[in-house]
Amino acid sequence: IVKRCASFYKKMIAPAFCALTRVARNSVSHLQKIVRRHLCASAVEGKYVLVQRHKSCDNETMKFPSVWLRDNCYCEQCFHQSSKSRRIDWDRFDTEVVALDVQVDSVAEQVVIKWSDQHTSTYDLKWLREREFSDERRQQYLNGFYRPKPKHWAGQQFKQITETFKFQDVMQTDDALQQWLEALAVRGVVIIEDAPLDKTVVRQLADRVGFIRRTTYGEEFIVQAKPGAKNYAYLSDPLPLHTDLPYYEYKPSVNILHCVVQSQSVGGSNLLVDGFHIADRLRDEHPTYYRILTETPVDWNDIGSEDGRSFHNIWRAPVIW
Amino acid sequence: IVKRCASFYKKMIAPAFCALTRVARNSVSHLQKIVRRHLCASAVEGKYVLVQRHKSCDNETMKFPSVWLRDNCYCEQCFHQSSKSRRIDWDRFDTEVVALDVQVDSVAEQVVIKWSDQHTSTYDLKWLREREFSDERRQQYLNGFYRPKPKHWAGQQFKQITETFKFQDVMQTDDALQQWLEALAVRGVVIIEDAPLDKTVVRQLADRVGFIRRTTYGEEFIVQAKPGAKNYAYLSDPLPLHTDLPYYEYKPSVNILHCVVQSQSVGGSNLLVDGFHIADRLRDEHPTYYRILTETPVDWNDIGSEDGRSFHNIWRAPVIW
Repeated sequence: IVKRCASFYKKMIAPAFCALTRVARNSVSHLQKIVRRHLCASAVEGKYVLVQRHKSCDNETMKFPSVWLRDNCYCEQCFHQSSKSRRIDWDRFDTEVVALDVQVDSVAEQVVIKWSDQHTSTYDLKWLREREFSDERRQQYLNGFYRPKPKHWAGQQFKQITETFKFQDVMQTDDALQQWLEALAVRGVVIIEDAPLDKTVVRQLADRVGFIRRTTYGEEFIVQAKPGAKNYAYLSDPLPLHTDLPYYEYKPSVNILHCVVQSQSVGGSNLLVDGFHIADRLRDEHPTYYRILTETPVDWNDIGSEDGRSFHNIWRAPVIW
Repeated sequence: IVKRCASFYKKMIAPAFCALTRVARNSVSHLQKIVRRHLCASAVEGKYVLVQRHKSCDNETMKFPSVWLRDNCYCEQCFHQSSKSRRIDWDRFDTEVVALDVQVDSVAEQVVIKWSDQHTSTYDLKWLREREFSDERRQQYLNGFYRPKPKHWAGQQFKQITETFKFQDVMQTDDALQQWLEALAVRGVVIIEDAPLDKTVVRQLADRVGFIRRTTYGEEFIVQAKPGAKNYAYLSDPLPLHTDLPYYEYKPSVNILHCVVQSQSVGGSNLLVDGFHIADRLRDEHPTYYRILTETPVDWNDIGSEDGRSFHNIWRAPVIW
C-alpha cells in the first residue's frame, strides 16, 4: 500500500521462504532431546503401534495409527529420498493394513514393523518423535515450523515495529537474509537501506529469495509521471492508498519498491497502512461493515495496454477476502 | 491431475480471460433495451437519487445512494477514462455529500446532479441502468458477467462433457478462442487436437490468452524419464493422481499439457479426475472426512533443484481449501 514515490521500481517475489524454513527447522530440532536406550514397541490389534521410551523423566507413550505408519514408510522402495515424495502406489495401497509383528532395536534406536502386505518398515526413534501425534507436539510443530505468526500494527507503532537492514548484509549473509524474511513475514513491511542507485537492486533482492512474478506489465514496473498516461500510476497526481493488483487471482505476496530518484517537488513520500490491522478494527468496532466487506463480491478490473499489448483483467472477490 | 504422459510439455497461464469478459459484456448488453423519453429524477433528502423512466411497460424506479453516485462520477476530473480508475481524492471526499439539485435531459437521456461539494455530475441513463441496485439486476449482472458457472463432472460423464478444439482454430479465430476459454472455465478440462509436434505449441496457446507463470522449474517443464531423477516426475514409475504445485501459494490456474512423443511401451496414458466433484461427493456422503480435509493444516513441500539452483518450497493449507 503505497501513496506516492516520485520514481521507483516495484516487483513481486514468490514466497520461497527457504531461509525461514531453515530457521524453523532449527528451532524444532532444539526441542528434540534424543532419548537413548530402553525402547519398546507393540501393536494394538494391528490398528495402532505404541512406542515407549523408558527413562525416569520421560516415559510417555507415542501412539501411531498403523495405516499412517505404513503409508509413511520411508524406505527407498516406498519413498523417493531426494524429492521427499511418497512412491507408494495408491491404487494398490491396503488401507486395512495391520502390523503383524513389531520389534525394537534399542541400540540403533529403531522400530521394525512387519506389515500384513508383506512389507517390512524400519522407523528411527528420532523420526517418530518428530511426528508424535499428541496435541502438545502438534501444536509445537504448528507454531515452530514454517512461518512466524504475523503481528498487525497501527500507524503510531510504525517506527517501533519497522526493522531496517543494510542491502549488502541481506545480499551477503544468510543470517541477515533470514532476519529480513522473518521481519517481513511478521510485520509485512521492512526497510532496506544503502542499496546502490541501480536498476538491478530489486531483481537482486528477489533472486536472493525466489523469483519475480510476472504480470501483464512484465516483471518490473517503473512508477513515473508520463505524458498521456494510460495507467493511473503514470499520472503526476498523488496516488491514494491502494492494494496493488487486486484484479489478479495471482496477487503479489511481496512488493519490493526501490526509490531511485526522489522528487524535487512537494510530495514524493510513501504512505503505508497495515490493511490487516484495519480489518481487525473493523471486525471489532463495526462488525456490520466488516461483514459487508467480507461478503459482497466486487469486480476488480485492470484495463490497459503495455508494450503494445492490450489487456482487460478481471477478478471478482470481496474487499476483505 | 495427470497420471502419466510419456513426454509432454506443461505450463501454466494466468487467467487473463479477456475473451470471456467480452462475451459476458455482450450478453449483458442484450438485456439492455434503451428506454427513450419521459425521464425524470429527484433527490430524497439528498441521501438518495430516484430516477424514473416513464413508459407503459417499464416505469419502475431506480434508487441510488447519493454517496455512491458522487463517488462514481465518471467525468474526466473524477475518473481516469482509459484505465477506468477512480481519481477522486479519498482523503478529501465528503461521505456526507448530498444532492442539492437534480435535473434531467430527456433528449440526451442524462441526469445532471449538483452536489453539496460544488461538483456537478452528469450520468447517462444507459450507465445508470447498467448499475441499477435492484436485487434482480444485481443477480443478472453477477450471473451474466465475468465467468460462467463451473460444472463438476464424474468419470462416466467424461466423453460427454469434454469439448474438443482444433489448434489452428483457437490460434486464429476469436470465436474459437472464446469457446475454448468458456469450456475450460465451465468444465476445467478441454482437448486441443491437431497441434504441430513443436515445442512452442504450449507457449503459443498461453500467449494467446495471457502469459506463463514461472515456478522454480522455470516457465516450462518437460516430463520425461531421466536417469538419477531428483524429481518424482522424472521417474519412469507411473505418476499417481496428483494436483500440481500444491506447495505454491501461487498455484496454477490452468495447466497446458502437450504430448510430443507417445510412449512405445505399456502405459503412457493420462488419467484425469475432477477434484471438485470428489469434494462435492465427500461433502454429501462423508461430511466428517470432508470437514477433516477442509480443516486440518497440511505441509506441502517441494524440495529439489533445477538448473543448478536448489529450493525448498513450503505451503501450509488443508487438502481441500
